[in-house]
Amino acid sequence: MTAQPHLNVVPFVSVDNMMKLVHAIGVETFLRELCDFVEEDFCRWEHFDKTPRVAAHSHDGVIELMPTSDGTLYGFKYVNGHPKNTKSGRQTVTAFGVLSDVDNGYPLLLTEMTFLTALRTAATSAVAAKHLSRRGSRTMAIIGNGAQSEFQALAFKALIGVDRLRLYDIDRSASERCQRNLAQYGFEITVCPTSQEAVEGADIITTITADKQNAVILSDNMVGAGVHINAVGGDSPGKTELQKDILLRSDVFVEYPPQTRIEGEIQQMPADFPVRELWEVIAGKQPGRRGPEHITLFDSVGFATEDFSALRYVRAKLQDNPLFEDLDLLADPDEPRDLFGMLLRAAAWSEPRGLDHEARKN
Amino acid sequence: MTAQPHLNVVPFVSVDNMMKLVHAIGVETFLRELCDFVEEDFCRWEHFDKTPRVAAHSHDGVIELMPTSDGTLYGFKYVNGHPKNTKSGRQTVTAFGVLSDVDNGYPLLLTEMTFLTALRTAATSAVAAKHLSRRGSRTMAIIGNGAQSEFQALAFKALIGVDRLRLYDIDRSASERCQRNLAQYGFEITVCPTSQEAVEGADIITTITADKQNAVILSDNMVGAGVHINAVGGDSPGKTELQKDILLRSDVFVEYPPQTRIEGEIQQMPADFPVRELWEVIAGKQPGRRGPEHITLFDSVGFATEDFSALRYVRAKLQDNPLFEDLDLLADPDEPRDLFGMLLRAAAWSEPRGLDHEARKN
Repeated sequence: MTAQPHLNVVPFVSVDNMMKLVHAIGVETFLRELCDFVEEDFCRWEHFDKTPRVAAHSHDGVIELMPTSDGTLYGFKYVNGHPKNTKSGRQTVTAFGVLSDVDNGYPLLLTEMTFLTALRTAATSAVAAKHLSRRGSRTMAIIGNGAQSEFQALAFKALIGVDRLRLYDIDRSASERCQRNLAQYGFEITVCPTSQEAVEGADIITTITADKQNAVILSDNMVGAGVHINAVGGDSPGKTELQKDILLRSDVFVEYPPQTRIEGEIQQMPADFPVRELWEVIAGKQPGRRGPEHITLFDSVGFATEDFSALRYVRAKLQDNPLFEDLDLLADPDEPRDLFGMLLRAAAWSEPRGLDHEARKN
Repeated sequence: MTAQPHLNVVPFVSVDNMMKLVHAIGVETFLRELCDFVEEDFCRWEHFDKTPRVAAHSHDGVIELMPTSDGTLYGFKYVNGHPKNTKSGRQTVTAFGVLSDVDNGYPLLLTEMTFLTALRTAATSAVAAKHLSRRGSRTMAIIGNGAQSEFQALAFKALIGVDRLRLYDIDRSASERCQRNLAQYGFEITVCPTSQEAVEGADIITTITADKQNAVILSDNMVGAGVHINAVGGDSPGKTELQKDILLRSDVFVEYPPQTRIEGEIQQMPADFPVRELWEVIAGKQPGRRGPEHITLFDSVGFATEDFSALRYVRAKLQDNPLFEDLDLLADPDEPRDLFGMLLRAAAWSEPRGLDHEARKN
């Protein structure tokens, strides 16, 4: 019917297919390869069109659009954050995203990103830790054992060899579930009764709680010399996890300062609080860790380029793993300027109450 | 398998189903009802979270995200504009959009919006003309007879009774195609050899060309007293259609001034050029047309609230016309915090190369 029959079709990766894709590749391989894509895009940071996310805040949460482009591809993610959702059986964070061709504006991929966000957040944290934590770091404390905790653990294992976990959650059953879920992955796991015990002996401390408030998940006295802090949960205005004093003792690394100063742990600090940009460390333009005694802190809030890397990775993997459906998302008339003609011709196979019928009434 | 089995599913309206929906309702009824939704949302303009669209400009076009919210629902549209696309058989403008529940951030609807954008743009123009053109306007000139021209004509017919069309396009075959497509709708149609002839005797002049440049589609001497100008094509920086002098003689009405001053015809004017907001006229807070001799000008660029109205309308109509598919877009674990467990359990029905297998290798 059309000269280019597939112009209207956009590959769609459902939740079901995303899980199949992760299984087909293997979760650790997936995370390791995704880390490569994330690192690659951080290395060409200056090529990206960067803008803070566009957030619509409401009483119980936020809906955000996170666009970016490298001039060849354009990507955006839709993501919500509603901590109360778990009470109604919903996810706190759900997401989907689109990758498009900048030259013609046509989408190349639509995919679920609830899983993909957990995977890319974990991959980004692992990449940061690769450049900032002490060499040989094997023990990680995870404070907050919600939906993202296992992904964090596996990314740190896949990329830098973390194999001892110390888990703490205000809900002990969450820690136990995390322990069960990770049972087959070769970690030595300790479920701890307090966060103080969780951080004992940890090389890396990951904070990843979900409450939308300024909380002190990690207090200053819990942070020893040489530790790397992976601060993931404090990621929106009014939502922080670290006691301010920790920030004063740490070398703080961020993704995109204009966004992190609003959303990250450093929202507690003055606007000129010194931070370093993670991409400069990854690209070798700035030193990372200054020495074994220093405290490094990755104030992660999640940035659009990381979603872009994840979209790019999924698109690349679909070539060998055709785990997608064809979505009839774009109107594709025989003659581009004849959109209405397409509608008219469609009436031929439509209901009796269709266009022709109505037109005859006139 | 889940207590609330449908939380993961988002209704999706494909291009195919959108055409069926238009036919099932009837295109003129669709446009008339859509006008009601557009008008209703303009009347409660102050309830909306408004922001200029987020545009990613490139050499050949633009990709935009247009979000808005009324505090209960959130909507956004993805739309591209690439005039060169027609050369490769693609649409200049394609779009899709999402409507979500603000309370939990979950999408309620994903729909094609290439058709829907043409329909809502036409509906908005017709609503503006209802409030701004002289009563009894029956003759409309349409300059630029591309993909949106028939939709404009039908909306003006459905809402205010326009039944005489004077068509002009630099490509005469486009005008002839428009004439053919509209043959059965009861218009008296004249295809004109020049734009000067097209505007003769017109009560309303619609300019809707696609070139991405500052052009003079309508010059000052072509615009007589009492005319209403529906300026649709000038809608991005560097893309205008009207000679500046026309703006000086007209009462200019716009959707959202901060956006129109960048994208509309008034980008040619100083930042303090006086304009009136369309919503105030529709809501009865400001007068529209001052008298039969005045020239009124709707400097249309398209605003997010109009897409919101269209999304809301489609969602309402789906209740009686179940023309959608269920899209597996959102991860829906049995236990919200157990996203990884959902992935683990999915391995049971996955490929032999799946998660369990890889884990056993460790």
